[in-house]
Amino acid sequence: MLAEIKGLNEECGIFGIWGHTEAAQITYYGLHSLQHRGQEGAGIVVADGESLKGHKGLGLVTEVFSNGELQKLNGMAAIGHVRYSTAGGGGYENVQPLLFRSQSGSIALAHNGNLVNATELKIRLEQQGSIFQTTSDTEVFAHLIRRSMAPTLKEQIKIALNYLEGAFAFLLLTETELYIALDPNGFRPLSIGRLGNAYVVASETCAFDVVGATYEREVEPGELIIINAEGVHSERFAEKRPRSICSMEYIYFARPDSNVDGINIHTARKNLGKRLALEAPVEADIVTGVPDSSISAAIGYAEATGIPYELGLIKNRYVGRTFIQPSQSLREQGVKMKLSPVSGVVAGKRVVMVDDSIVRGTTSKRIVNMLREAGATEVHVRISSPPITHPCFYGIDMSTREELIAASHSVEEIRQLIGADSLAFLSLEGLIEAIGRPSDSPWCGQCMSCFTGKYPLNTFQE
Amino acid sequence: MLAEIKGLNEECGIFGIWGHTEAAQITYYGLHSLQHRGQEGAGIVVADGESLKGHKGLGLVTEVFSNGELQKLNGMAAIGHVRYSTAGGGGYENVQPLLFRSQSGSIALAHNGNLVNATELKIRLEQQGSIFQTTSDTEVFAHLIRRSMAPTLKEQIKIALNYLEGAFAFLLLTETELYIALDPNGFRPLSIGRLGNAYVVASETCAFDVVGATYEREVEPGELIIINAEGVHSERFAEKRPRSICSMEYIYFARPDSNVDGINIHTARKNLGKRLALEAPVEADIVTGVPDSSISAAIGYAEATGIPYELGLIKNRYVGRTFIQPSQSLREQGVKMKLSPVSGVVAGKRVVMVDDSIVRGTTSKRIVNMLREAGATEVHVRISSPPITHPCFYGIDMSTREELIAASHSVEEIRQLIGADSLAFLSLEGLIEAIGRPSDSPWCGQCMSCFTGKYPLNTFQE
Amino acid sequence: MLAEIKGLNEECGIFGIWGHTEAAQITYYGLHSLQHRGQEGAGIVVADGESLKGHKGLGLVTEVFSNGELQKLNGMAAIGHVRYSTAGGGGYENVQPLLFRSQSGSIALAHNGNLVNATELKIRLEQQGSIFQTTSDTEVFAHLIRRSMAPTLKEQIKIALNYLEGAFAFLLLTETELYIALDPNGFRPLSIGRLGNAYVVASETCAFDVVGATYEREVEPGELIIINAEGVHSERFAEKRPRSICSMEYIYFARPDSNVDGINIHTARKNLGKRLALEAPVEADIVTGVPDSSISAAIGYAEATGIPYELGLIKNRYVGRTFIQPSQSLREQGVKMKLSPVSGVVAGKRVVMVDDSIVRGTTSKRIVNMLREAGATEVHVRISSPPITHPCFYGIDMSTREELIAASHSVEEIRQLIGADSLAFLSLEGLIEAIGRPSDSPWCGQCMSCFTGKYPLNTFQE
Amino acid sequence: MLAEIKGLNEECGIFGIWGHTEAAQITYYGLHSLQHRGQEGAGIVVADGESLKGHKGLGLVTEVFSNGELQKLNGMAAIGHVRYSTAGGGGYENVQPLLFRSQSGSIALAHNGNLVNATELKIRLEQQGSIFQTTSDTEVFAHLIRRSMAPTLKEQIKIALNYLEGAFAFLLLTETELYIALDPNGFRPLSIGRLGNAYVVASETCAFDVVGATYEREVEPGELIIINAEGVHSERFAEKRPRSICSMEYIYFARPDSNVDGINIHTARKNLGKRLALEAPVEADIVTGVPDSSISAAIGYAEATGIPYELGLIKNRYVGRTFIQPSQSLREQGVKMKLSPVSGVVAGKRVVMVDDSIVRGTTSKRIVNMLREAGATEVHVRISSPPITHPCFYGIDMSTREELIAASHSVEEIRQLIGADSLAFLSLEGLIEAIGRPSDSPWCGQCMSCFTGKYPLNTFQE
Repeated sequence: MLAEIKGLNEECGIFGIWGHTEAAQITYYGLHSLQHRGQEGAGIVVADGESLKGHKGLGLVTEVFSNGELQKLNGMAAIGHVRYSTAGGGGYENVQPLLFRSQSGSIALAHNGNLVNATELKIRLEQQGSIFQTTSDTEVFAHLIRRSMAPTLKEQIKIALNYLEGAFAFLLLTETELYIALDPNGFRPLSIGRLGNAYVVASETCAFDVVGATYEREVEPGELIIINAEGVHSERFAEKRPRSICSMEYIYFARPDSNVDGINIHTARKNLGKRLALEAPVEADIVTGVPDSSISAAIGYAEATGIPYELGLIKNRYVGRTFIQPSQSLREQGVKMKLSPVSGVVAGKRVVMVDDSIVRGTTSKRIVNMLREAGATEVHVRISSPPITHPCFYGIDMSTREELIAASHSVEEIRQLIGADSLAFLSLEGLIEAIGRPSDSPWCGQCMSCFTGKYPLNTFQE
Repeated sequence: MLAEIKGLNEECGIFGIWGHTEAAQITYYGLHSLQHRGQEGAGIVVADGESLKGHKGLGLVTEVFSNGELQKLNGMAAIGHVRYSTAGGGGYENVQPLLFRSQSGSIALAHNGNLVNATELKIRLEQQGSIFQTTSDTEVFAHLIRRSMAPTLKEQIKIALNYLEGAFAFLLLTETELYIALDPNGFRPLSIGRLGNAYVVASETCAFDVVGATYEREVEPGELIIINAEGVHSERFAEKRPRSICSMEYIYFARPDSNVDGINIHTARKNLGKRLALEAPVEADIVTGVPDSSISAAIGYAEATGIPYELGLIKNRYVGRTFIQPSQSLREQGVKMKLSPVSGVVAGKRVVMVDDSIVRGTTSKRIVNMLREAGATEVHVRISSPPITHPCFYGIDMSTREELIAASHSVEEIRQLIGADSLAFLSLEGLIEAIGRPSDSPWCGQCMSCFTGKYPLNTFQE
Repeated sequence: MLAEIKGLNEECGIFGIWGHTEAAQITYYGLHSLQHRGQEGAGIVVADGESLKGHKGLGLVTEVFSNGELQKLNGMAAIGHVRYSTAGGGGYENVQPLLFRSQSGSIALAHNGNLVNATELKIRLEQQGSIFQTTSDTEVFAHLIRRSMAPTLKEQIKIALNYLEGAFAFLLLTETELYIALDPNGFRPLSIGRLGNAYVVASETCAFDVVGATYEREVEPGELIIINAEGVHSERFAEKRPRSICSMEYIYFARPDSNVDGINIHTARKNLGKRLALEAPVEADIVTGVPDSSISAAIGYAEATGIPYELGLIKNRYVGRTFIQPSQSLREQGVKMKLSPVSGVVAGKRVVMVDDSIVRGTTSKRIVNMLREAGATEVHVRISSPPITHPCFYGIDMSTREELIAASHSVEEIRQLIGADSLAFLSLEGLIEAIGRPSDSPWCGQCMSCFTGKYPLNTFQE
Repeated sequence: MLAEIKGLNEECGIFGIWGHTEAAQITYYGLHSLQHRGQEGAGIVVADGESLKGHKGLGLVTEVFSNGELQKLNGMAAIGHVRYSTAGGGGYENVQPLLFRSQSGSIALAHNGNLVNATELKIRLEQQGSIFQTTSDTEVFAHLIRRSMAPTLKEQIKIALNYLEGAFAFLLLTETELYIALDPNGFRPLSIGRLGNAYVVASETCAFDVVGATYEREVEPGELIIINAEGVHSERFAEKRPRSICSMEYIYFARPDSNVDGINIHTARKNLGKRLALEAPVEADIVTGVPDSSISAAIGYAEATGIPYELGLIKNRYVGRTFIQPSQSLREQGVKMKLSPVSGVVAGKRVVMVDDSIVRGTTSKRIVNMLREAGATEVHVRISSPPITHPCFYGIDMSTREELIAASHSVEEIRQLIGADSLAFLSLEGLIEAIGRPSDSPWCGQCMSCFTGKYPLNTFQE
């Protein structure tokens, strides 16, 4: 499954609010619902019309914020961030929002995405005397703004945005304004909602449900939204291109209760499972999913085939960052960590194991093996996405193709490697049709580059 | 659902091992798999043949133990405990195992259960000069042992066990021996397994799967097992009575991958859901369960009725003890905490919501309301157990019947209170037959007292 | 100096107050002024007429108590304790006051001293079924009270006190009463004072000065004082013996601003230095003292001889428990830890180095060497007390005579060992006359056993 | 005394080493000996020839560094810093050394001093697009270096140093070089020493004694020293001006065992006391000093007058940052905090109280009052420096003259305000002659501006 490469995923979650007396509190609950997008760090910055105040830290939202700290963050506007990885050398200083103070006013930045030209821009800025305090891509954006000769902050931001290439969803807060921007391809989801008179913005709509807000619309690719005392104002900083929202949001990243670009995630995944059942049926006794991200697809597969859906694999909910890994000797003696098979369910059964993806294959191999040891007589692996054959440059850190098993192995070879009785992936067409986005582009507005090698920006084409 | 009364459940989890060079490490993983039985505190005590060493603390197993602390706990035998509640005034000193040192040797105690005559025994012991350091029932057992005039520790333990009334599963570790005891009614589950040459004992068999051990048998009601350098020896400290294992273990407490007295929990719960479907079918569009404990029953209900099973409710996995509760005003504005509805799934649908139980009814009411706000057109509540009409005295702290809504209201009244379109509970017969224990007693060896008021010990009969 | 044997000193400090609305706060400042008597742990228990509440921890008073914790300790009476050593295996549970709760009422205990028959009493109590939770002597006293058949707590306490042998100063707090007791020899200092209408009791009078209280009198050997709503009441639990207050309180333990049994400590030490100058003068350029305890004696020596007093040795004030000890290689390269010589002051000078005592001689050797390396041309060591030749059993843990260099070496042999140009100790007569206690006993009411081997209780006589 | 204005003193301590396998460890002990110069934060950065690694934190050196963290800092060169105040808004990010990474190499900065044109430079840099991450003056220096067009780092540093005005002693570490610079007036002390083959540099020579190093020479005003693989190289970045070392280093800041510019501090202070005795003798019974900084002067005063020196005031050693301040009501009841009088010493006596300085007068008033309450019949205050009449701009933050009592009151008026029987300050000539610097300038190379209003840089002249 996709989670198997540590640090593979550069996903993050962002949340913002304008015009609410409990802005920091709302942001806390919003971030909490986006926690699945990043567990390494969290932070909130508030604006009270005169200054910015922030608090951030390493760990979960609930670990970073105590009630006392939250109370101190008074103000009518706030932005927040949950950070996935410490890629880049990380640590505390890379936790966002990043806060930049100066004599002429402060800006706070929260960013979800990956800038493909960040290093190049950073070198140029340093040559001109800029000093970077973090190893985060995001800081490049701040320097570009400060370096701009444009007369107003809005113009500075627009110019700076045009320097950036890649996937980005930005929230920028000043003492008196909230800026929202999405890259011209719209790789990342970003939605706008209302909470009474307040405006909210979030990476996923589940945050709206949790804070009691109502969904309004998606932020458009290339759009720059400014919210201040005078109201909401929308501009374009770049021409609209066909949307290329990341397919993995549907397959793996997003929470089942979110709607991404209008499509419910649980439903999309269940449809992936149903389609997979049509494309690759198998005779078996039970269907089981790899928790948590493959449950919906497994239910769909079971429903479409009529094979009973069972809890054949259990995930321990209490595995945190402080979990002590078993020694090699204990692992060989059979000590399990995160996932364990339910022998009472799988023993003597032909099992269909549905997972969302295969990256290196090692995790799949381990799970297949686990199911067999628990007594499964057959294990049929069904993957609710096509083979991942190419690295992603917009938010998933797969430095080379070498790690991707499907880049160099056939399906049959992979089957042998993971030890399954049969193996099938979903087709590209199946993926698109099951998700069911309106077909306004060759790929229906989805980025499929990790399956096809065709990159929307044409930069990395092979 | 049963979790709705804070501190209601006095459940705990215990784990022990004898004869393994990494006894503390194995216990760590064992306890980790039992974490669902108690999140308030955890501890491990090891014996190395000459002394006992222990570490314990408030919080999750992963929070209490760092690798360094675990490394210090070297020894070939260990017992461990996860504690559910701080009932009794709690805090650090009540976290188990309790460790009692003396000139003549030390004993460590880990206890799962509830002694109904603990206060009475404590008063008598204090009148004779004993000083208690905890407010835990468990300490009474230690004092009874120390007060006994019997010549050997084994005899002292047997006499002490006979003073106790209620539900208890005890692990007692000395420098050189491990004692295992289960109360004469066998209210609590306690299983024995093997890990190579080592013996393991645990509240649930999922711990065996996680550490790679194989299940051997249940500890019998009234049995006292002694493991030492000479091997394993079994005695009885009390005559065998018909087993009265707590029905709630099947309905709510145990982990789906455990087998309790030979019956798999997920399968039992799925059968409860199927039986419920037969007893109380309804025309609807989707079936959803309240996570986590009701998922299996909901899947069973869906399977038996043919109505699709969907993720209509999402539980936030990251709610920990440090979660900041929303203010009243935020709650009124719609801020959700732990559970949120998936509007993309339930909107415009007739929903069957399957839950495991109703205690006070407030949670059910909240969930029904949540589903309606998310757009459900009908909400039909199905409970996979009979109405709880009587307090439990063996491990569930329901001080009075007043809190139990089913003690004073009819099913129709409850339906109105929780705002459901229809409501049905499982029948007593349905419960017994679905779980399917061999019928060696009127109640098939299950304690049904919270549903019937008929208490196995006859002490609290009305 | 005396501090050189780690864990040598079993001294502690105790403080109590009755009848003040800010009892816990006053106790905090009182304990803070007694911090020199113990840095390992601190605790406070308050009584509010109905219950006892306490807080304690490892570390300094300022580390153990935050303002929030102190605020919670509301009540009109309090006792507190600072603990010196972790002797006995220590840790959190041994930090005092110890708090014993029971159905019939609670007691809290704070103890300064050493019971010579504690182990013997503990064995007997355990044989009768008592369970000890600490390895502290003090707990024995609690069990003796609880085991007593006497009808009232006061009678129980008096009987229990008569079981005890050794040095003890006890504060015992119940919900409604404060008990104060001093052993029949009065080994330890314990004074009573008034703060407005409140009563205060402390190990040293410096605590009275710090909290603004006025000194009233010493607690008498064998006296039991009870303070409750009816006022103050004094009884005897034992016949008065000649007082044997520890000489080391004057020489080393107590703070310079305290008066012990009416005699100011700084003045006593300065007189020890003056007397030493008369007994053992020497031609030299400067006098320096080993900080902190020998400063007063050095000033006295300088004043009596006319040799200038200088700061020849500096103590780093910031050496705490978390100080990282230098590696052996760094120590050999000359890295100093706690004490460093002032070469600007000692270079080219004949130095008189005044210290309070020599125990093993290793520290003296190190300091003499340090002074020579800093350029001193001669180093004359003068000790403001007689040679320590015998172990102490009443509060100083010198298990055998073997560690005491003066038990087996002549003054000349010690001089050679420590590398001094000359060495002299104060005479026994000099010690007594310089301190100047009224001569109501052969030893003027001082315990001199570590210098003479004559033990007040006759128990350990050689 | 000078410590009475919170945040008054911007002093810090710096330490560096080049060419030692345990560079970080040596720096730890060096910083530890400089702890009196700053207790708010500490940090160390090491260079291993290829990269810089650092660790820093709020609190004492012993609190910030654990053994584990120190072990990770391997490398042959290191610089360290102890920070006095959090002036500037402070917090973690302002703790030094500041570490600036870039594609072209990293620099770490440790700074003792105060830049008088920092704000002006910062505004200019921000206008050109620089982003500041701290509110520390020191960061300005880093930006000036990075902005410089000069071809080599050394040239960049020299140009940057010439932008700076005020007092500064800088250590700058790169992967391969250590730079040392002192401002052209030499306001701050900075000395060079040897430790075997290694070079060391420190704010005070006491650090050399503690690590076993030998003193070589002072860094000269306007000197830039570069140490790298090729050896030590000295240059000038500015013409030499007459040295203006801060008089307060002799009077108050430095540790008694340090030599500042060749003069021992304890000896200098004792001479200040002796001179004060000549200038302002008084008939009295005892002399006492205000601990710790006035002890040496008091001893000198006593020696010169023949009046006995006594410990009339005691400082509690355990007052840390976590000390709970007494409430107003407790303070009125007489609760003391840091300092308490020794009534056993002062009662009935005519007391000479020697202090190093008077800033606002409130502390002096409190101490005089304290001594009277303890029974002193007369209190004669003698100050071992002239009246402070002007603010300092080079490291002591006295924003306005209004806080300085001596700026607006005569000696007699101050005497009345503080309630002394007599009051005398040392004369300007007395100060210069007692310290005894070689008279190579009108003020003997000392900055006397706070006593005279004559500022070396002519910038702030009135």
